[in-house]
Amino acid sequence: MKYFEIIKKDFSSQARVGKINTTHGVVNTPAFLPIGTKGAVRSLTPEDLKNNGAEIILANTYHLWQRPGDEIITRVGGLHKFMGWNGPLFTDSGGFQVFSLAKISKVTEEGVIFQFDMDGRKEMLSPEKSITIQANLGSDIALILDSFPGYPFEYEKSKISVELTRRWAERAVSEHKKIIANSVNPEQKLWGIVQGADFTDLREQSSKDMISLGFEGFAIGGVAVGELQAEILKAVDMAIPHLPENSPRHLLGVGTPKDIIEAVARGCDTFDCVIPTREARHGRLYVQNGAPIDIRLEKYKQDFSRIDENCDCYMCQNFTKAYLRHLYVNQEPLAIRLFSLHNLKFYLDLMKNIRQAIINDTFTQLRQQYANKGI
Amino acid sequence: MKYFEIIKKDFSSQARVGKINTTHGVVNTPAFLPIGTKGAVRSLTPEDLKNNGAEIILANTYHLWQRPGDEIITRVGGLHKFMGWNGPLFTDSGGFQVFSLAKISKVTEEGVIFQFDMDGRKEMLSPEKSITIQANLGSDIALILDSFPGYPFEYEKSKISVELTRRWAERAVSEHKKIIANSVNPEQKLWGIVQGADFTDLREQSSKDMISLGFEGFAIGGVAVGELQAEILKAVDMAIPHLPENSPRHLLGVGTPKDIIEAVARGCDTFDCVIPTREARHGRLYVQNGAPIDIRLEKYKQDFSRIDENCDCYMCQNFTKAYLRHLYVNQEPLAIRLFSLHNLKFYLDLMKNIRQAIINDTFTQLRQQYANKGI
Repeated sequence: MKYFEIIKKDFSSQARVGKINTTHGVVNTPAFLPIGTKGAVRSLTPEDLKNNGAEIILANTYHLWQRPGDEIITRVGGLHKFMGWNGPLFTDSGGFQVFSLAKISKVTEEGVIFQFDMDGRKEMLSPEKSITIQANLGSDIALILDSFPGYPFEYEKSKISVELTRRWAERAVSEHKKIIANSVNPEQKLWGIVQGADFTDLREQSSKDMISLGFEGFAIGGVAVGELQAEILKAVDMAIPHLPENSPRHLLGVGTPKDIIEAVARGCDTFDCVIPTREARHGRLYVQNGAPIDIRLEKYKQDFSRIDENCDCYMCQNFTKAYLRHLYVNQEPLAIRLFSLHNLKFYLDLMKNIRQAIINDTFTQLRQQYANKGI
Repeated sequence: MKYFEIIKKDFSSQARVGKINTTHGVVNTPAFLPIGTKGAVRSLTPEDLKNNGAEIILANTYHLWQRPGDEIITRVGGLHKFMGWNGPLFTDSGGFQVFSLAKISKVTEEGVIFQFDMDGRKEMLSPEKSITIQANLGSDIALILDSFPGYPFEYEKSKISVELTRRWAERAVSEHKKIIANSVNPEQKLWGIVQGADFTDLREQSSKDMISLGFEGFAIGGVAVGELQAEILKAVDMAIPHLPENSPRHLLGVGTPKDIIEAVARGCDTFDCVIPTREARHGRLYVQNGAPIDIRLEKYKQDFSRIDENCDCYMCQNFTKAYLRHLYVNQEPLAIRLFSLHNLKFYLDLMKNIRQAIINDTFTQLRQQYANKGI
């Protein structure tokens, strides 16, 4: 069985429907990965996620390394067993959180010396260390440690970061080969990351660097770090032509429904993003028709209609806007649970619709529909 | 069909198994009522509660009056519809929260003048007002407004409170008769409350006062307000002999598993208490064998066993102590959700075991078992 199978290509764009075959199950692509930062998707159980249509989730290496520690997780047989999720699991390298959450002392050739945000513990994240932790977690897809050049983008810094990412990638591949057979998940696949900011030659160079190392899949990194949507898509456009057609492509940290559809149209296959759960915490609920509903608004106090008549999630089938507003403004934790479930279902349904539209040759219409919706 | 049917009486105590027949379903007694203060049981859905074996829940009149307001709830057809719970519902009078949470300006013959704790709104809670609000909520069981003499108990104060409770009860009954036929739940039954602190003659007097008003059920109030377990049971012992055998008896705000079993042995039928959900929030988990588990303890960090091997709740079937501790110490909201589910299941299973033991003539053994356990 091939690791990644392409089932259907869209006639009007570079979108494709595919399957990633992992030992923990199949991921139908284009796919969205709910984020279970610390080994749990906010308020939701693995059963909720399965029922909601999630086929794969992402967990953060940085957080799990910090607490409870990857050694504890590997002792129980890996993250699947630890968190009770038996489907495919994706882990990042920990690098993005080190750059965004931790206090960095020094970036050297060896790796990044930093202090954890919660307990101030000093550690070094090297390409090998990231591989070791992810091997201990036993995810199905692991990512190499990459170097992030910072935003706004500068050419010289970005070039140095692309070169360092290549050298780190070589060390990651070599470490992965060395240790993975004796880890909790010997079938874990390592994916490379393309850096290069918004510079065509650097994105091309980084893509070629990654291809030369024989990765099973590729992530496009250094996007969704503060730039506009058009810039994210520009980075995608710069990388995609240089990546192998027959490998899956992940777009890190993206995005809104429109971002996702546009990236799918450019050939991206998988996505992870905090938006649906973060919006849920802010009381903003996605609906099929129209702009998201801000449940805090006074006008919903006596609105006994459903959030979305067309949604078959537990929340929409059972509760009115008035009740959900009541829960939210009174800080009942059930609100965030229901909102997370609903918004994730919106995203997971969106992916299903995207796949169906590509199969049915109606992806152009779906793309147009979301371009008009502007969400 | 009789409102309350006694199915079986225990040979060794005053315990009995019964059924309360409401228009929203049957409550098998002895029963425990999970508390949905603001129209939601912390983190849980109505579906969770049903699956967990809950047959009836309690909601607080004070909180729902404050927010979102009973007029809004009645407009959607009552609290059952508002919160999506179609089983039996019990509401209190609002009085206990006015005495414990609100800022009281004055207690008069007319009622209690107070300010709401959240927005400082000034209101008067009278016996009629409490009936009006509960009629708007449309619960299956409503309680009269009673006067609470305060703790520690003093004879003179308690006597005055018993007398005021009687006069308020008369007004409540008369108001209920007047308005209930045109409310959202014309089948709502009104229950009286026995006060009298720990004074035999006052408990007797109060019981007789209540009986004379023809209530469908009786609650024993003014207990679990800071006194020891023995004192709670003393109050029960003082009231029960004077209450009609064929009416259901609720013990307000009680208690630990042992409290409940001892009160059942004395003839109490229904109970409400925050203990299981409050303990859940504090990371304390009930188990069949032994003392509750304090999941915060360091020793559980690498303990990959289940909380309770004999429990068939979703948490115990899927997660290890190490994972649950990780969720709790990292403030993942999933922890409180799972803990609430588990602790409520423990209580609801306890009630099922109590009923079964009475039916099987083994209640004495169950009672002894919990006396030994000391929880």
